[in-house]
Amino acid sequence: MMTHARNLLLLALAVAGVPAVAQPPARDTLVSPEVRPDRTVTFRIRAPKAAQVTLFGAWMPVGSQQPMVRDADGVWSVTVGPLAPNGYLYSFTVDGVTIADPVNPDIKLRQRTSASLLEIPGNPPEPWEIRDVPHGAVEVSWLKSKVLDGSTRQVFVYLPPGYGKSTTRYPVLYLLHGSGDVPASWTQAGKANLILDNLIADRKAAPMIVVMPGGHAVPFGSARAVQAKNTELFEEYLVDEIVPWVEASYRTARGRENRAIAGLSMGGGQAFNVGFAHLDLFSAIGVFSASGGADLAGRFQQQLAHPAATNSKLKVFWIGIGKQDAGYERAKQFSAALQGAHIEHPFVETEGGHVWAVWRWALSEYAPLLFRR
Amino acid sequence: MMTHARNLLLLALAVAGVPAVAQPPARDTLVSPEVRPDRTVTFRIRAPKAAQVTLFGAWMPVGSQQPMVRDADGVWSVTVGPLAPNGYLYSFTVDGVTIADPVNPDIKLRQRTSASLLEIPGNPPEPWEIRDVPHGAVEVSWLKSKVLDGSTRQVFVYLPPGYGKSTTRYPVLYLLHGSGDVPASWTQAGKANLILDNLIADRKAAPMIVVMPGGHAVPFGSARAVQAKNTELFEEYLVDEIVPWVEASYRTARGRENRAIAGLSMGGGQAFNVGFAHLDLFSAIGVFSASGGADLAGRFQQQLAHPAATNSKLKVFWIGIGKQDAGYERAKQFSAALQGAHIEHPFVETEGGHVWAVWRWALSEYAPLLFRR
Repeated sequence: MMTHARNLLLLALAVAGVPAVAQPPARDTLVSPEVRPDRTVTFRIRAPKAAQVTLFGAWMPVGSQQPMVRDADGVWSVTVGPLAPNGYLYSFTVDGVTIADPVNPDIKLRQRTSASLLEIPGNPPEPWEIRDVPHGAVEVSWLKSKVLDGSTRQVFVYLPPGYGKSTTRYPVLYLLHGSGDVPASWTQAGKANLILDNLIADRKAAPMIVVMPGGHAVPFGSARAVQAKNTELFEEYLVDEIVPWVEASYRTARGRENRAIAGLSMGGGQAFNVGFAHLDLFSAIGVFSASGGADLAGRFQQQLAHPAATNSKLKVFWIGIGKQDAGYERAKQFSAALQGAHIEHPFVETEGGHVWAVWRWALSEYAPLLFRR
Repeated sequence: MMTHARNLLLLALAVAGVPAVAQPPARDTLVSPEVRPDRTVTFRIRAPKAAQVTLFGAWMPVGSQQPMVRDADGVWSVTVGPLAPNGYLYSFTVDGVTIADPVNPDIKLRQRTSASLLEIPGNPPEPWEIRDVPHGAVEVSWLKSKVLDGSTRQVFVYLPPGYGKSTTRYPVLYLLHGSGDVPASWTQAGKANLILDNLIADRKAAPMIVVMPGGHAVPFGSARAVQAKNTELFEEYLVDEIVPWVEASYRTARGRENRAIAGLSMGGGQAFNVGFAHLDLFSAIGVFSASGGADLAGRFQQQLAHPAATNSKLKVFWIGIGKQDAGYERAKQFSAALQGAHIEHPFVETEGGHVWAVWRWALSEYAPLLFRR
């Protein structure tokens, strides 16, 4: 025991007063973004040597920049709003260099470049805000693809609350992201998992699995001739690999009536093209902020020639877009052409541009329509 | 059919030649980082108006900055290396503003500020590189915590390959991140899932579940007096909430011999303090780039007074650190004090600082020691 007593003393001396880990360096305590209860927001960036700093946010018209003003300490700031409760991407441009907010940890990951995410909470909470309800899980898998040259890609899968403890088989929504995005985008920026958690808790949507694969079948940034093959290759990837993998890996309800597809922008075009071509696989299509492509009549002769049959197969066909979207007129023409061919669908408009605020809304509107018995 | 033919024509006219989605704006095709086969790397940033641009990378001494040089087009660049195959955080400082690389999509998420990730592949591949082996999945759950004031926190859980298709019960490693990090850090920057995939495929490690909770029990950036309570509150969170939730939610092998704990930096301190205090729960402790805190002798009187009993309970007690870590001497003292008290453990050194390259190595060394029968 004397030995131990001595060793304990040694131990105490050796480490007394020494913190367990290195202290982090003194931190900049700048707050950005600062969201106030009245939904005004102040953005700040410390850039003492900059000559010009501007803000771009997803609530602003594309291409515009809002000047920020420098204070005596070299902190540039601007106050905006009030903004509607939702999520918005934003970035700063400091002397011509566009960057995410250096102190905001909520960075939107994407294929190239980054932006920060601003969240404006609502009262009561909006459908995409985290609430005290049962939460589903999001499972990320790494899947090797033969179709995509043997590359290994991430797939995100939302499993509804209680999935792990039940023997239920669930219907599946395939949910596709936009150009430049990644498989994480629909959960990170779109809050798809929280939207489903809330809709399921409120009994506004059926419990479902949501599968979020990567939509860039050819590499992002490829030459235009290569990009032109993206939808076709993605269709093969989804139909030949992702759907069979999902059915083999998760407790899915089988049959076309238990499969829906939807997507935003590039993913909306994919949802239409893959879904409309495979009505044997899908009974619901959602097109968010997109249209269907250039060769409808050629590609979908069969579906368009027999609208009654097509309509009876498509339990849900929903097209929605923001009125300030640059693709608004094109989407409207797409809808009108389908209407002219007697393909039934609503064309639903909302305020907003080509932005996540609209896509959160679109998913919140579309998901409740699915898998109704 | 005439009606349909007309409608098809209308459809063709309405959308002919119109791309499915808005074309992205012309993109900057700058490449950064450019990693060459000889493991040299060129970093680039377009900042025509900047007066000074520097690079900091995790392979450099803390606090140093490498100047970058401007070309006629306003692109600043610098070439470094060759670097050892591994992953490294880096950032640019443009006229005093420290930012992630604006064109590199691999951004390390953390509590405040961000940096970019550089990956240098090895030949043959290093233990943390993706290989053509079966991949486990990473499941993200949102867990409401009573201990943490009713807040809802993410928990990341690695499930080994085949988990979904077996009835096996798996042992569990609780793997803790460092100060400023988030539950995603061990997979995003640490590649913990790929490390386990590779070790399991090579039969160097037992198939195991890895649980990665958030380590900031009190908010990151709290006053020092509040921060001082973090380890204690985290212990309560892990022991009273996370472990029971894991055992209820996943097919876990039961008993202390099937539970290990490890962490890096702040998480290394937590792993030691929680693990050493709960030898009823854990049979293995890994301390990466950390030491055990100031009051060992006071807190762990029982464990230190009976080293033979403690040693027999601790099947694995592993301390590892980089020789260039600012906490190296402190960790060495910690190890020496434990040795003085006859608590058995290796003290394993490697080249490197307080960086992810070391933590990938540490996990690759530690995981194979666990759950050996």
